[in-house]
Amino acid sequence: MSEITPIRPLPEAEVPGWDIETDVAIIGFGAAGACAAIEAAAAGASVTLFESGSGSGGASALSGGEIYIGGNGGSDAQQAAGFTDSTEDFEKYMMMAGGPDADAAKVSLYARESLNHYQWLKDQGVPYKGSFVPGKVIEPAEDDTLLWSGSEAAWPFSQEAKPAPRGHTIQFMGWGGGRKLVDILEGRARALGVDVRTDARALSLIADASGRVIGLVVRIDNKPQYVRARKGVVLATGGFCMNQEMLRRYAPETLRLNDPLGENDNGSGILMGMGAGGDAIHMDEFFTTCPWIMPASLVKGIFVNERGQRFINEDAYHGRVSRTLLDQPGDKAYLLVDNEIFDRPLDLARIEIAAVGETWEEVEQELGMSEGTLSHTVHHFNKHAAEGKDPICNKDAEWLKVLDQAPFAALELNASTSYFSFFTLGGLNTAPTGEVLDRGGQPVPGLYAAGRTTSGLPRWGHGYSSGLSLADCTFFGRMAGRTVGSAAA
Amino acid sequence: MSEITPIRPLPEAEVPGWDIETDVAIIGFGAAGACAAIEAAAAGASVTLFESGSGSGGASALSGGEIYIGGNGGSDAQQAAGFTDSTEDFEKYMMMAGGPDADAAKVSLYARESLNHYQWLKDQGVPYKGSFVPGKVIEPAEDDTLLWSGSEAAWPFSQEAKPAPRGHTIQFMGWGGGRKLVDILEGRARALGVDVRTDARALSLIADASGRVIGLVVRIDNKPQYVRARKGVVLATGGFCMNQEMLRRYAPETLRLNDPLGENDNGSGILMGMGAGGDAIHMDEFFTTCPWIMPASLVKGIFVNERGQRFINEDAYHGRVSRTLLDQPGDKAYLLVDNEIFDRPLDLARIEIAAVGETWEEVEQELGMSEGTLSHTVHHFNKHAAEGKDPICNKDAEWLKVLDQAPFAALELNASTSYFSFFTLGGLNTAPTGEVLDRGGQPVPGLYAAGRTTSGLPRWGHGYSSGLSLADCTFFGRMAGRTVGSAAA
Repeated sequence: MSEITPIRPLPEAEVPGWDIETDVAIIGFGAAGACAAIEAAAAGASVTLFESGSGSGGASALSGGEIYIGGNGGSDAQQAAGFTDSTEDFEKYMMMAGGPDADAAKVSLYARESLNHYQWLKDQGVPYKGSFVPGKVIEPAEDDTLLWSGSEAAWPFSQEAKPAPRGHTIQFMGWGGGRKLVDILEGRARALGVDVRTDARALSLIADASGRVIGLVVRIDNKPQYVRARKGVVLATGGFCMNQEMLRRYAPETLRLNDPLGENDNGSGILMGMGAGGDAIHMDEFFTTCPWIMPASLVKGIFVNERGQRFINEDAYHGRVSRTLLDQPGDKAYLLVDNEIFDRPLDLARIEIAAVGETWEEVEQELGMSEGTLSHTVHHFNKHAAEGKDPICNKDAEWLKVLDQAPFAALELNASTSYFSFFTLGGLNTAPTGEVLDRGGQPVPGLYAAGRTTSGLPRWGHGYSSGLSLADCTFFGRMAGRTVGSAAA
Repeated sequence: MSEITPIRPLPEAEVPGWDIETDVAIIGFGAAGACAAIEAAAAGASVTLFESGSGSGGASALSGGEIYIGGNGGSDAQQAAGFTDSTEDFEKYMMMAGGPDADAAKVSLYARESLNHYQWLKDQGVPYKGSFVPGKVIEPAEDDTLLWSGSEAAWPFSQEAKPAPRGHTIQFMGWGGGRKLVDILEGRARALGVDVRTDARALSLIADASGRVIGLVVRIDNKPQYVRARKGVVLATGGFCMNQEMLRRYAPETLRLNDPLGENDNGSGILMGMGAGGDAIHMDEFFTTCPWIMPASLVKGIFVNERGQRFINEDAYHGRVSRTLLDQPGDKAYLLVDNEIFDRPLDLARIEIAAVGETWEEVEQELGMSEGTLSHTVHHFNKHAAEGKDPICNKDAEWLKVLDQAPFAALELNASTSYFSFFTLGGLNTAPTGEVLDRGGQPVPGLYAAGRTTSGLPRWGHGYSSGLSLADCTFFGRMAGRTVGSAAA
């Protein structure tokens, strides 16, 4: 798990014989693998799914089960809450969120197909209550199913695309609906006859002399089994947040973070795909967040770095704020709050009170900062906040509050000791069809991938929004399954 | 040039016949390729060097011919200037400059061997006057050959390793000694019998059935020529700053910069190496600089971003300052100077005067900044500078000056319009021997690489120091040549 193992395809000539034969082989049983399996089976293919763990799950099952959905006038939930959502705004937001090399083809396709995808999820049995939770939440506290999950209403996104809430969460009481989502998808896959093999670790792909992927080697009961996949193989093993060596090589900024969000995200699918000729892109990108926005009154506080400088509009998505915090000098940043908005942060977040004072000057001094740094920042902020403005960071007026009710506190968010969960966003370059592409943009025959094994809709840590990864996993998992399921055997 | 062409090795079985046979084939005739050729020939191997251009050069010939050298008590030039330089300090600095995943093995070897390498360069005929230029310069204005070329004397580097100037420049009148350096190395290579083929573009490697690299295909006179390399192939084609598609995929932060520093750095060597199983690492990293430090009085100015905030100790190496500038919001940053230190920046730098005022408040207003931002930053800075301190950014007292002599000016450095030269630092992972490593850290048989085709001593844009790249090209070019030259045929 903590190595970078070379995973070149086994040449067909070295296969002693086929132990398992199937049309489609899928590696990994998170949401991406499950959706690929459902569509491949629905296309009439025989499907065998190999999972290294003892059951379905992956990082998807650790999530809130939230999927980024919108456009096309708005979903039932969006409309019921009074929001319209044009496909153009939806697409524009996702392009901004995708960063300087957003995948325009995937964004465009998903923008058009998003409501159809929502319907498909319902058809699989995923329940949506359709009720909206306003404000800043990370996951619904009860069983509501629509929330703000990105930076839509925050500068600069709000200037370019009309905001709408787009986080569509599975109906589930409390946090953690991702487990239920995967369970439902698993049930559908099994109902469609997908042959699920758990405790089956993929060791390598198998390629014929032309380089075409024709199967894989899996270890079952401590023995290698040779699997012939007549139509192709889908890699859906997640990202590499659990592989220290890959992190060091490809995303060293994550090394100081302690809370990888993954189950068995060891990068094996990416390594197998690269070994077969696939291109891995944006490998340095990662999502991270510290859940500092709960209770939401804290969003009315302001962040300063160790120099006492602000660095972000705090009403942006918590992941964008957290990622920008990591760009600041040193490990620490401080969330400044007054007595009116102070509330204890989530225990989970591991955020400590670093200083308290009757004046901002006292807080500044207690933090050991130079006189006239933090205090000046707050006074400047307060002066403009009183007029509903934030000339420094463009925080929206809704979240502006004069921080003048003593006592005052500085809450310390520390990259090394607070809870900064993270997962990787880099991976194989794929076409919207799920085909793995080589460096020339040509498909690697017989090879498909989806989810965090790929670089997809979410590919820029500074623009991540909740639900983008599961949207990518489920929709492009489906696309991969559909393509491979109808491929020639 | 603006594509990502898939470059898998041609299978040996498809070679119609060998047109050229040699022990060692080297692709690329910059400093790395030249040094590899010299050492391989010195080891008794027959060497053929293929260069796509009409002569030697590469990015090395566009440089100042400066090589980062030190440790072991100090070079003749360092000692003559009154500096001692321990190997430990030298190594520590290079480790810091290499960032979170510095190549400890290469740094350690080079730290020990640096003075021997200096002697080797002299033995090849590279002249060094041994004279020191104090202060802040980019290249010597006359023919001196030692200068400060990094952040050694600047925080935080100065806190961890005793500073010493380590930029050893070839003796050459004025800027641009890199051309002379390559000419000398070319002369040595030719004297040792290296067969140089210019206008010879490498199209792909050739591998045998086991994956071993055994030659290459080059296009000469518009015809493919099949080259058998009995001992191995060295990739030394530079980085990928001239390949827009690779930049977009791997280093999209560079897309807004207009001044790639390269000759034919199209990434072909990296792509060929990856195609043969090599691992490419830290592909997002790049060096950039805007030469704002000349005249050096400008270093006494302070930088603010569009929010009026300082972001770096301005006495750090100009590339570190420039790279950090790119991390700031927006494209613009301002260098604030008073009348006492103002001087016209180099024309080359394309730095414009954005605002002038009799007070800092006037400058702030003219830039359209909120009242009490830039002006407060300067007043805070001035207050502490008067005491020889910089509590915000830890600029060394040597460069601190109270900015209080009106009129005042803000010079605009703009990422999109000023001269931000850049080149890429990501590339193939190699052992100190020059062997190209696969993802498991195992050598790809028959394949070697050096220079910016690899990720070597310089691998972190925020820590780059002048001379690190040529140190890496020349020393590890030699190591690659030595290894392949004495390999079994």
